Amino acid sequence: MPIYKAPIEDTMFVLYDVLKMEAYGNLPGFADAPRDLVEAIVNEGAKFCEEVLQPLNVVGDTVGCRRNADGTVTTPPGFKEAYKQYQEGGWMGLAFDPEYGGQGLPATVNTVVGEFMSSANLAWGMYPGLTQGAMAALHVHANDEIKRTYLPKMTTGEWTGTMNLTEPHCGTDLGMLRTKAVPNGDGSYRISGQKIFISAGEHDMAENIVHLVLARIEGAPAGTKGISLFVVPKFLPTPDNKPGQRNGVSCGKIEEKMGIHGNATCVMNYDEATGWLVGQENKGLNAMFVMMNEARLSVGVQGLSQSEVAYQNAVAYAKDRIQGRALSGPKAPEKAADPIIVHPDVRRTLMTLRAVNEAGRALMLWTALMADVSHRSEDAGERQKAEDHLGLMTPIIKGVLTDLGFDNAVKAQQMYGGHGYINEWGMGQFVRDARIAMIYEGANGIQALDLVGRKLGANGGRAVMSFFNEVGTFCAQNKDDATVGPFIGSLSKGLKDLQAATMWFMQNAMAKPDNAGAGSTPYMHMFGLVAMGYMWAKMAKVAQEKLVAGANGSTDRMNAKLVTARFFFEQMMPETGAHLARIQAGADSMMALAADAF
Amino acid sequence: MPIYKAPIEDTMFVLYDVLKMEAYGNLPGFADAPRDLVEAIVNEGAKFCEEVLQPLNVVGDTVGCRRNADGTVTTPPGFKEAYKQYQEGGWMGLAFDPEYGGQGLPATVNTVVGEFMSSANLAWGMYPGLTQGAMAALHVHANDEIKRTYLPKMTTGEWTGTMNLTEPHCGTDLGMLRTKAVPNGDGSYRISGQKIFISAGEHDMAENIVHLVLARIEGAPAGTKGISLFVVPKFLPTPDNKPGQRNGVSCGKIEEKMGIHGNATCVMNYDEATGWLVGQENKGLNAMFVMMNEARLSVGVQGLSQSEVAYQNAVAYAKDRIQGRALSGPKAPEKAADPIIVHPDVRRTLMTLRAVNEAGRALMLWTALMADVSHRSEDAGERQKAEDHLGLMTPIIKGVLTDLGFDNAVKAQQMYGGHGYINEWGMGQFVRDARIAMIYEGANGIQALDLVGRKLGANGGRAVMSFFNEVGTFCAQNKDDATVGPFIGSLSKGLKDLQAATMWFMQNAMAKPDNAGAGSTPYMHMFGLVAMGYMWAKMAKVAQEKLVAGANGSTDRMNAKLVTARFFFEQMMPETGAHLARIQAGADSMMALAADAF
Repeated sequence: MPIYKAPIEDTMFVLYDVLKMEAYGNLPGFADAPRDLVEAIVNEGAKFCEEVLQPLNVVGDTVGCRRNADGTVTTPPGFKEAYKQYQEGGWMGLAFDPEYGGQGLPATVNTVVGEFMSSANLAWGMYPGLTQGAMAALHVHANDEIKRTYLPKMTTGEWTGTMNLTEPHCGTDLGMLRTKAVPNGDGSYRISGQKIFISAGEHDMAENIVHLVLARIEGAPAGTKGISLFVVPKFLPTPDNKPGQRNGVSCGKIEEKMGIHGNATCVMNYDEATGWLVGQENKGLNAMFVMMNEARLSVGVQGLSQSEVAYQNAVAYAKDRIQGRALSGPKAPEKAADPIIVHPDVRRTLMTLRAVNEAGRALMLWTALMADVSHRSEDAGERQKAEDHLGLMTPIIKGVLTDLGFDNAVKAQQMYGGHGYINEWGMGQFVRDARIAMIYEGANGIQALDLVGRKLGANGGRAVMSFFNEVGTFCAQNKDDATVGPFIGSLSKGLKDLQAATMWFMQNAMAKPDNAGAGSTPYMHMFGLVAMGYMWAKMAKVAQEKLVAGANGSTDRMNAKLVTARFFFEQMMPETGAHLARIQAGADSMMALAADAF
Repeated sequence: MPIYKAPIEDTMFVLYDVLKMEAYGNLPGFADAPRDLVEAIVNEGAKFCEEVLQPLNVVGDTVGCRRNADGTVTTPPGFKEAYKQYQEGGWMGLAFDPEYGGQGLPATVNTVVGEFMSSANLAWGMYPGLTQGAMAALHVHANDEIKRTYLPKMTTGEWTGTMNLTEPHCGTDLGMLRTKAVPNGDGSYRISGQKIFISAGEHDMAENIVHLVLARIEGAPAGTKGISLFVVPKFLPTPDNKPGQRNGVSCGKIEEKMGIHGNATCVMNYDEATGWLVGQENKGLNAMFVMMNEARLSVGVQGLSQSEVAYQNAVAYAKDRIQGRALSGPKAPEKAADPIIVHPDVRRTLMTLRAVNEAGRALMLWTALMADVSHRSEDAGERQKAEDHLGLMTPIIKGVLTDLGFDNAVKAQQMYGGHGYINEWGMGQFVRDARIAMIYEGANGIQALDLVGRKLGANGGRAVMSFFNEVGTFCAQNKDDATVGPFIGSLSKGLKDLQAATMWFMQNAMAKPDNAGAGSTPYMHMFGLVAMGYMWAKMAKVAQEKLVAGANGSTDRMNAKLVTARFFFEQMMPETGAHLARIQAGADSMMALAADAF
C-alpha cells in the first residue's frame, strides 16, 4: 500500500524562511493568521489528508464511480464520509469571504492544504477544488442575490460546484459552443445542450450541485463574443434556500477513463434547465476565467502533488529493496545485496524528483502569496505587481509542474521495475492520475501559447521584465557569495538563454506568428527551469543563513537543500541551452510539410 | 476505434535504398529472399497485422486474460484464432533453421513483421515473440536431443515458449535467485521455486508451453556463478513427441497490471517439475543471454511500434479535429475552425514522432541486418564487426526506443485533449502498453549501465571506436554536400559531444565508478540521438539521390525525408549538449546525501 506524509517542515520553511510570510501581516486576514495558527492549520490539514483521504486513494481507483439507472451517481466507498469530515472541519471556507461564512484566512494556506489533499487523493480533492473555484467565480461576477443564495451553502460544503465548458465538438475553441440559453422573461433562462468531461458533475456527497455553465443566449453573436455564464443548480433553491424542485440537468454517462476513477467525469445533459446569468451577457468567458485561472493553479499543484507522493514511495522502496552492489563496494555487506538507493542512477531519479518538488512548492507558494496580495492589498502598485506575477506564472505553473509531475511519477514507477507495473504497489495510479493534469483546464500546449502569445507581451512586457529584473538583481547581488555564488553562473546562463529566446520572439514572431507557436512549449519549459532555478538559489541562500545561525534541529535539512540546489543547477538547468536552440530554429521545419504528407 | 497501417514503403526504403540489403546476397538464406519475395512477405505480414491482429487490440485490453479455477488461462476472445492463422501462415519459423522446419529467411524480415505485429497488438505479439526467443536460446545452447524434441514443435507454433528469470525478491540481481534444481540421476532435474512476471506463462493458444527456467543446482556456488538454465515443459513430451503427462509447473495467479492486458503475466509455481539442463551447469546466465539479447531488441521494436501506431492515430485526429484558427490566418475558411494540424505546436508533436519513428526503424533494421551478418557470414572479420555493432546497439535500441516510444505515445495522447484521456479513442492503451517496454528485459537504467559499464570498454573500446569512425567518416565525406551538408554541422556537434562524454568516462570513472553510473542514462540517450542522427543523415543523402534520379512516385516521400531530417537536427539533436553537461558534472550531487536524508 502506498504511503504519504505531508511535507509540513518544507512548507513552513518556504512560507516563513524563504517567502517571509510574516512580512504580509498588513493584508486582511493575514493578521488573524500568525505563524503558530498557520502551523496548527497545516498540521490539522496534514492529519486529515494522511489519515482520512490517503487510505481512500486506492479504493477510489479500484471501485470508481457508478452511475445508477436513475441517473444518480455513487462515489467510491468512504468518499462521502470523508467529505462530511471535510465539511465539519470547515475546510471549504478556510480562505473565503467571511461575509458568506468563510474564515477569510490567507488563500496561501488553502493552497498548502490543497497540495496535501491532492497528494493523498487527487480524485477526491477535485470535488472541493471545483467548488472553491466556482465560489471564486460567483464571488467576483454574480449579483448579490445569486451570491446570497449560493455562496453560504457552498462555503459550508453543503452544495458543491462544477465548471461546464467543453462540448463534444469544442474544448479549446469555446467560440464554437452550441449550448443555448433562452430568456424566460423573469430574469431566468432555459439552458439546453450537452457538456462533456464535467468533473464532479454528479455525485452523492452533497445535497445540491451548482453548475457554472457557458452557453449562448439566443441571438447572441457567433464566436467567443456571444458566450454567457450561467449558474444552473441541480435542485432549484426554495425561498428558504433548501434544495427544491429537480432542475432539467442530468448526468447521461460517466466516462471510462485512464485514471482519477474516484471522480465522476460526466456527460451532462441540459434540457431546458433553469439558470441565471452570472455577470454580463456575452461576457461569460471573462467571468469563467476567474474560475479557470484558479483551477489552472490548482491543477499545477496537482502535478506537483503526484510527484511528491510518488517520490515518497520511491524513497521508501529504494531504501528497502535490495538488489546488486554499490559500484564503490558493498554498503550493506551483512545483506545479500545493497538497498538500491546506493546506485547513482536511482539517486538521479530521487534527486530529480526532490529538486522539482521543492522548487515547485516554493514557486507555487510564492504565486499563491502573490494571489493573496493581488486580491487583498490596499496598495495599487503592489496589487499590480502581484497580478502581473500571477498572470505570468499561471501558465508556467500549470504547464511545467504538470508535465514534470507526470514525468516524475513515471520515473518513480520505473524505479520499482516490474513491481511498478503491477497494481499491487500503487505506482501506476500516480502515473494515470497525474496524466490528466497535463490535459484539463487547458492542455499544456495551450498554456504555452497563453504564455507566449498573451502573457509575454501584456502591458508592454511589464510582467516578464519585472521577473527578469528580479532574478538578474538577485544574481548580481549574490554572484560572489561563497555558498550561492557557485549556483549563480548556472542561473545567470539560464536567465540569459531565456532573455535571448524572448528577444528572438520579439524579432521573429511579429512577422511570422508560427515562430511563436513553434517555440512555445520549449519556451514554457525554459521559463519553468529559470523560475525553479531562482527558487533554488533563494532557498540555498536562506539555508546557508540558517546553517550559519545554527538553526536548531534543521541542519540536515538545510544541508540537503544545498546539495539539492547543486543537483538542480548541474543536472536540470543545462536544458535551457537546448531549448534556446530549438526556439531559434523557428517554425520552418515544422510547417514545411503539406498536411497530406503526414 | 484506433487505426493502423503498416509502414511498408518506409520499410522497403530503409532495407533496399538505405541499407542496400541486396548487397548481402551472399549470406545463407538471403539469396533465397530476393527483393520481390521480401516485399511479398512484408505485404502479407502487414495484411495479417492490419486485418487480424489490430482489431483484437482493444478487446485484448478490455477483456484481458482470465485464470480459471483449475489453473488454466483463457486469453481474450479472438486471440486463439489469430494465433492459429499465424501458425498456418508459417510465421513462427520464418527465419529459423530449416533443419528444424524453419524457412531460414533473413531474420531482418522477421524483425520487420515483428514491428508490425507489435504496432497492431503488442500484447498478442508477445506470445510468438517469446517463443522465437526461446527457440534461439535452445538452438544455440541445448543438446541435440532437446533440440530435436522441442524445436520442430516450436517452429510450427504448436508449442510456445517463455523465459523464467524473475523471483519475488530478485529481478535485476539474478545472483540472489532461489529456485532450485535437484538431479534425478537420469539426466533430468526436479525444479522447485516461484517465478513472477512470466509473460505468456499460461494460456490456451498452444498445446504445450516450453518454459526456460533459471535455477540453482543443489550445491552450486552462490551468486550468478551457480545459475543453470533448464527446459521445463508444461506437458512432458511422450516418446512420439506429443504432450504427455502434466508437469509440476502451474500458474498461481495472473498479475493485475497497468497494460498489456491481453498477455497473461503469470506467477509460475514450480513444484518438483521435471526439467532438463540447457547448456552447461552453472552457465545458465550465459545461455539465457541469447534469449535476453533477442528479447531486448524485440522490446526496443515494441517501443518503436507504439510510437508508430500512436503517430498514425494522432495524424488522423489532427487532420479531422477542427479547433481554433491558424496563427497565419484561416486555412479552412469554409469550416467553423481549422483542423488542428495547422498549429505549430501540434506539428511539433507530429514531427517529433515522425523523426523518431523513421530513424528508429532505420537503426533497428540496420542492427537486425548486422544480427543476420553476425550469425550467417562466413567472414570472421565481418562477423566480428557485426557482433560489435549488435552488442553496442542492443542497450541503445532497448533503452532509447522504449523511452521515446512511451514519451511519444504520451505526446500523441496529449494532442487529443480530454478525448485522449477517455478510453473511447484508444490512445491510453498505447501509453499503458508502451510503458512496460521501459521496464521488462532489463529496466532502462540497467540498459544504460550495460552500455557504459560493459559495452563501452569491451575489447578495448573496439565497437564504439568503430561507430565513431563510421559516423566521423560520413561527416567528413558529406560536409560540403549541398543537401546533406547543412545537417552535418549538427551531427558532428552531436558526435563531438558523445566523444567528449566517452573521454570523460575514461578519465573519471576508473577511479570513481559512481561517475559512470551517474552519467549512464544521459549517455545512453545521447548515443541514441547520435545514432538516429546518423540514420537521418544517411536517409537524407539517399532521398536526395532519389530525387535527383527522378524516383518515380516517391518525390513527396523523399521531400518529406529531407524536411524531417531538418526537424531532427534542429529540434532534437541540441539535447546532446545538455547531456554532456550532465555527465561532466559527475556523481557528487547525486551521492552527497546520506540515505536517511531522503
